Amino acid sequence: MALTGVLRPGHTQIRVLDIEQSVDFYTNILGLVQTGRDASGRVYMKTCDERDHHSIILKKADRPGTDFYGMKVLDRKTLDMLDSDLRAYGIATERVPTGDLLATGERVRFEVPTGHLFELYAEKEEIGDTLGYVNPDVIIEDRKGISPIRLDHWQIHGKDLDGSRNLFVDVLGFNVTERILAEDGATDMAVWMTCSNKAHDVAFVRDERSDTSHHAAFLVESWEKLLYAADLLAKKRARIDIGPLRHGITRGTTIYFFDPSGNRLETFCGGYNFYPDMKPYTWTFDEIGSAVFYHTRELNERFLTVVT
Amino acid sequence: MALTGVLRPGHTQIRVLDIEQSVDFYTNILGLVQTGRDASGRVYMKTCDERDHHSIILKKADRPGTDFYGMKVLDRKTLDMLDSDLRAYGIATERVPTGDLLATGERVRFEVPTGHLFELYAEKEEIGDTLGYVNPDVIIEDRKGISPIRLDHWQIHGKDLDGSRNLFVDVLGFNVTERILAEDGATDMAVWMTCSNKAHDVAFVRDERSDTSHHAAFLVESWEKLLYAADLLAKKRARIDIGPLRHGITRGTTIYFFDPSGNRLETFCGGYNFYPDMKPYTWTFDEIGSAVFYHTRELNERFLTVVT
Amino acid sequence: MALTGVLRPGHTQIRVLDIEQSVDFYTNILGLVQTGRDASGRVYMKTCDERDHHSIILKKADRPGTDFYGMKVLDRKTLDMLDSDLRAYGIATERVPTGDLLATGERVRFEVPTGHLFELYAEKEEIGDTLGYVNPDVIIEDRKGISPIRLDHWQIHGKDLDGSRNLFVDVLGFNVTERILAEDGATDMAVWMTCSNKAHDVAFVRDERSDTSHHAAFLVESWEKLLYAADLLAKKRARIDIGPLRHGITRGTTIYFFDPSGNRLETFCGGYNFYPDMKPYTWTFDEIGSAVFYHTRELNERFLTVVT
Amino acid sequence: MALTGVLRPGHTQIRVLDIEQSVDFYTNILGLVQTGRDASGRVYMKTCDERDHHSIILKKADRPGTDFYGMKVLDRKTLDMLDSDLRAYGIATERVPTGDLLATGERVRFEVPTGHLFELYAEKEEIGDTLGYVNPDVIIEDRKGISPIRLDHWQIHGKDLDGSRNLFVDVLGFNVTERILAEDGATDMAVWMTCSNKAHDVAFVRDERSDTSHHAAFLVESWEKLLYAADLLAKKRARIDIGPLRHGITRGTTIYFFDPSGNRLETFCGGYNFYPDMKPYTWTFDEIGSAVFYHTRELNERFLTVVT
Repeated sequence: MALTGVLRPGHTQIRVLDIEQSVDFYTNILGLVQTGRDASGRVYMKTCDERDHHSIILKKADRPGTDFYGMKVLDRKTLDMLDSDLRAYGIATERVPTGDLLATGERVRFEVPTGHLFELYAEKEEIGDTLGYVNPDVIIEDRKGISPIRLDHWQIHGKDLDGSRNLFVDVLGFNVTERILAEDGATDMAVWMTCSNKAHDVAFVRDERSDTSHHAAFLVESWEKLLYAADLLAKKRARIDIGPLRHGITRGTTIYFFDPSGNRLETFCGGYNFYPDMKPYTWTFDEIGSAVFYHTRELNERFLTVVT
Repeated sequence: MALTGVLRPGHTQIRVLDIEQSVDFYTNILGLVQTGRDASGRVYMKTCDERDHHSIILKKADRPGTDFYGMKVLDRKTLDMLDSDLRAYGIATERVPTGDLLATGERVRFEVPTGHLFELYAEKEEIGDTLGYVNPDVIIEDRKGISPIRLDHWQIHGKDLDGSRNLFVDVLGFNVTERILAEDGATDMAVWMTCSNKAHDVAFVRDERSDTSHHAAFLVESWEKLLYAADLLAKKRARIDIGPLRHGITRGTTIYFFDPSGNRLETFCGGYNFYPDMKPYTWTFDEIGSAVFYHTRELNERFLTVVT
Repeated sequence: MALTGVLRPGHTQIRVLDIEQSVDFYTNILGLVQTGRDASGRVYMKTCDERDHHSIILKKADRPGTDFYGMKVLDRKTLDMLDSDLRAYGIATERVPTGDLLATGERVRFEVPTGHLFELYAEKEEIGDTLGYVNPDVIIEDRKGISPIRLDHWQIHGKDLDGSRNLFVDVLGFNVTERILAEDGATDMAVWMTCSNKAHDVAFVRDERSDTSHHAAFLVESWEKLLYAADLLAKKRARIDIGPLRHGITRGTTIYFFDPSGNRLETFCGGYNFYPDMKPYTWTFDEIGSAVFYHTRELNERFLTVVT
Repeated sequence: MALTGVLRPGHTQIRVLDIEQSVDFYTNILGLVQTGRDASGRVYMKTCDERDHHSIILKKADRPGTDFYGMKVLDRKTLDMLDSDLRAYGIATERVPTGDLLATGERVRFEVPTGHLFELYAEKEEIGDTLGYVNPDVIIEDRKGISPIRLDHWQIHGKDLDGSRNLFVDVLGFNVTERILAEDGATDMAVWMTCSNKAHDVAFVRDERSDTSHHAAFLVESWEKLLYAADLLAKKRARIDIGPLRHGITRGTTIYFFDPSGNRLETFCGGYNFYPDMKPYTWTFDEIGSAVFYHTRELNERFLTVVT
């Protein structure tokens, strides 16, 4: 089979300071659809276009940040195989039982060398995008807010970048698509990795602050929708970090902004399609500005320092 | 590894009535880049963005049509494995030696049940997109004509659709993403199939005229570029079949047009991303209009009858 | 003053067979905002972006068509002056008193040589676009349906095209921007005219069927919004006449479609800006296809024959 | 006549430090077309879409800046009338003879209260946009660089803003479309003014540095072309000031950047259409950030301080 193993980022649990304020932001501004609440007060959401039950879980906490990162795998057999591969590689895994998250099957949870909690799962209830599977229409009407297409990727920070990178390549079957080299011209300062045709599914940045998140990204359909996103964020007085602009890395276009708790989010559009026969791109330390913000060619302070 | 096996449509040899007239059309209107000519007079071309040596080969002939369809596989090991799998499945294969096509390694060639000649290959010289792999810029300047991103997919016709569909699913690892059912509500009239995250890499249509091609499609970057394509085709008095408009199938947007020899080409944009955990879409016979041309909801005669 | 006299198409009264069905179409699909109903059952509407009380009046009737065409003039003084100029030119005028239309001042009404009832007015209640005039935001949220920007122009048909053209040029200060010549190479078959920087505010087509309307057009913001319009019309099973495509005339992009009563409407985007020092464009009879539908280069039968 | 008097910004003479370097920038990056050089070494340029002989004149000088601002008027009669009106208003005028600028008729030159040299002219040789006036095509092929549509507007600074504003309103027939008020809530800090359906043709900003220019702006066709402009400017290592982003004022989208001599230029897209029955917008001092850069809601230092 051509596409196997780990399929995509499937869900992420985000810590928020105030649940109702966050639900308002994630539904009316980001434009996700609420699909459930569980006994512990967690709120489940998905984009209009996603078929599985949820991709975002909001959990009340006293500080922002991300609790865990879930990736969907092809099927149960793959789940068991990857669990076994992880253990063989020396990574401790844990089974989180069906029902711990609404509408979600058993998960295989493990900590990666950069300190982040990842989990794999093969089953999540499919609730669809409202268009059905027989003679579907091509558009969903009356979408609210930015209304992205999907949870797209994460950028996360930690000390042992090499460890996480190797784990994702060697065990989880990811490819490195781009990297920024440190001043020494040899060490990876940051790597972008994919398990699909996307230009990236996850990026790791070397940072003393392990188990931190830089941003979760959502895909939007066009550069024009990205303009609408910026207009709406500005109108709602949301905190825009930077954008709309172009990345050198991935060629994608972007806006970075913060949710009310201070979690950085991205709306992302474009990016080339990756195939595993393609050479990765390398960015040298002196061109880090162009790599990240192609138009301004320099990083802003906030972008470099704020992680959660 | 997450993406393996057959990677993508890699090249296709198109029969043209007049080589120089065709080179003019394919470079100045479609906007491909000429990358070579071989001793037999064949002309090799690629899109600006493709890295491999060529995706289109033009060959002089006395009637239009497509000689063969080449798909790139991950590596030599995969090539040998798929060759063996094909034989095990009862498909005769043949090795076409390195050097038969410029800059291309050994190919495994076989006829599929609908009569088309397919070939797999693992190696083609990488000549790049001019941007390089270190600190690349994000745009290629002074692109000519429509200037698509890549050879995207084929729609081909033949009698034994079931045979080709099963071969692509069972041996080559493709997934069916969409189908149109015949009036009986059970038989596949047409199937769209993918080996990647694309909504389709190849489509088969049931047709008495085996080994015929309906179109080869090229990806363009945006709906706005599709408008430019239509404007340019109209300005150059190229024969537009239909478009710009939206497909129900794949949700992509499209223009169909003919090269000077009468080969139908498509510029295609958009389409959802497919994952193998997604249910395929089914279109019923009475909704075939919406399936193919979502806006007009009816097929035009020429679209139904002309194949090469 | 640089922009004086007749400012723009301001309102039009459209005959519909069923008021509630039409209100549903004009609000939920076309995406106008209802602003009033009068004692006679007429329904008043405007686009989200228009500031004046209404631009469309729907009136129940037993056949489709347009009752009258209203154009806003700069001020009362201009109204009186143009009334006097019209009479001096030999056109009978009539004063329709304030209050005949909701929120609208006195109108000067007259029949033009092609048989259409036009009216000029200087005053209409300004109800605004909801953004206000102090520190306005740049976007209106939660727009419904196609949601055009403004009533843009009319194309209307009648026998004495020369008479109407001359009246609009000589008395109302319009400029001819484009024309299609008849087979004789001398007679105007159709003329596009403007009173502003727009490529057209009104077009007259020579036709035995005087006092008929081909379409009223609404401006949309971008080619991408035009795609959304086509998608939505198709989803709602509205009758699309043709499009999306490009006009040769005006360079605008377009979709033509019908309201439930059979009135043809257009969503229009783009078009060059006109200045009165610019030469008009001429289209010869043999290029009428490219003139109207630049991509298909031929007119469809329905487009030529259906007027209301 | 509906559109009379002053038609539009027609030309502007820009001081550059190095002619050949500037010609390279203005043709290959900005994408203007060179149309002539005169005996004094000045280089004349126009956009691909403009019909008159030139809109930009580059003149070698030892510091950047703008020598004069030319506006086209409807005809010779208007030129004489406005000359007379200016003198009656107390503004000294001077006639610059035909031939002083290539292909340009007599100009009426005068200094406005903010110290800038303006000129009016009625005649300039029409060289066209290459598409002709009979059965024109809708696109110009092989455009180079950013390739804007037209010289659009100027933003210029000076002490006596009130004087210039009044002159443009009272004598030249402009309308104020937007204003930013100073902290006192009464004084105009900046005004945007139009002589057409455009949201602005000229803007004046109150500034101790009289006779200075903030930027000359060029219209581009779409938000997508603005992205291309930003990509190209970044690739060419041109100095981008800010953008792409949205203005609160005019609702237009923008990129500001510098030519090699330090003259700030703008590529501008969109903006509402203005009619003289529309109320102007007012921005209060505390919202100046949103007024100018709607997305960032704050001005950058460089934008505030650099004028030439």
